[in-house]
Amino acid sequence: MIKTIAFDADDTLWHTERIFINTKEKYAALLADYHDYVYIERHLDATETKNIQHFGYGVKGFTLSMIETACELTEGRITGDKIKQIIALAKEMLAAPIDVLEGVRETIVELSKNYRLMVITKGDLLDQETKLARSGLGDYFDAFEIVPRKDAKIYKYVMRRHEIAPEEFLMVGNSLRSDILPVIEAGAKAVFVPYETEWFHERVSDEELVGNHFGRIETMLELPAWLKTL
Amino acid sequence: MIKTIAFDADDTLWHTERIFINTKEKYAALLADYHDYVYIERHLDATETKNIQHFGYGVKGFTLSMIETACELTEGRITGDKIKQIIALAKEMLAAPIDVLEGVRETIVELSKNYRLMVITKGDLLDQETKLARSGLGDYFDAFEIVPRKDAKIYKYVMRRHEIAPEEFLMVGNSLRSDILPVIEAGAKAVFVPYETEWFHERVSDEELVGNHFGRIETMLELPAWLKTL
Repeated sequence: MIKTIAFDADDTLWHTERIFINTKEKYAALLADYHDYVYIERHLDATETKNIQHFGYGVKGFTLSMIETACELTEGRITGDKIKQIIALAKEMLAAPIDVLEGVRETIVELSKNYRLMVITKGDLLDQETKLARSGLGDYFDAFEIVPRKDAKIYKYVMRRHEIAPEEFLMVGNSLRSDILPVIEAGAKAVFVPYETEWFHERVSDEELVGNHFGRIETMLELPAWLKTL
Repeated sequence: MIKTIAFDADDTLWHTERIFINTKEKYAALLADYHDYVYIERHLDATETKNIQHFGYGVKGFTLSMIETACELTEGRITGDKIKQIIALAKEMLAAPIDVLEGVRETIVELSKNYRLMVITKGDLLDQETKLARSGLGDYFDAFEIVPRKDAKIYKYVMRRHEIAPEEFLMVGNSLRSDILPVIEAGAKAVFVPYETEWFHERVSDEELVGNHFGRIETMLELPAWLKTL
């Protein structure tokens, strides 16, 4: 019944949150003369959330938020040298090696024999494209969709564009908010694979989950078996 | 013979370079205590060119280059307050009103009756998407493709994805480098509509043009008549 399986990319196919956490630690160290880690992180998260309407998702917008936060938390006393170090952190993030999650490669290789596979992800186009290339998984996917947000309308648009009937479409991802609930709303199926940490932008309350049916697996290795239960 | 017409967006459908020029002027004014406009612009252009490999095209990468250049040209003495003003310039650019080029609206409305219309553009996804929405032209286009670069491979990919034969495809744009030469290489047709200024990243030498046949019109209003000459 399922013919197309689409995967979220960041923290579903490869580790991304780790790179952000690592960068945040280096960033807090740069500002250690002014504030402690917890205080800096709270302000950075708030700036990032406020800026998503302007900058969207991805490393470049995150970096602009790091710089804006640094100016604010130092009351303008941040040095040009430290700002340059923050920009260097951005370039480092964009070039970071791609660390594919456990079990992903074998699962993708196996499923590509019987299903049409896609990636549907938010973020910066160039960044996501080079990550897919560096992951070595590019050849297994028939399509790579970078979307400005993940809501039911976008999923319907992607399915229509690829001539996929909702009942033949399955989305797999680590975010209930982005990969699961809107896909169900669009009439398709979804499987949740929780990541080791949950991104604060993507939290979902228990009430929002009521009445929504979706699969849940602990690692990508369980996906082929889950598909057989359908 | 032509069934699909694709348009570049920035400086083909709406003014963009003007927004960048305006921003560069405000940026140079912020740094006026250190250097003159010409010196600042030359360094900014150089930083931008060097950073395209990391940041790609669009406002966010341009802003990171403005910040990096400001740190360099002030030898680190730039103040946090000025950095915040640069970030504010970015938000202003992203929210700038869309100024559709003369003759574009009527031409698009007319052509949409007989052709399938697309937009193919570089830049940030969220930014380009909101610009299309703000332009009021969104409804006339069947597809909106944001690409990381414009080479023959990308044009072939877009045509294949939309099941368009190269001989039925026409690209219209203001860049010989991005909108004309690679389209001809991909076996399709192209029409050049020069903009009032030429972007320094996109310059093409006369030798590169030899043997390439493409149309040239002075404003978009001439496009319907040009199509009748085919």
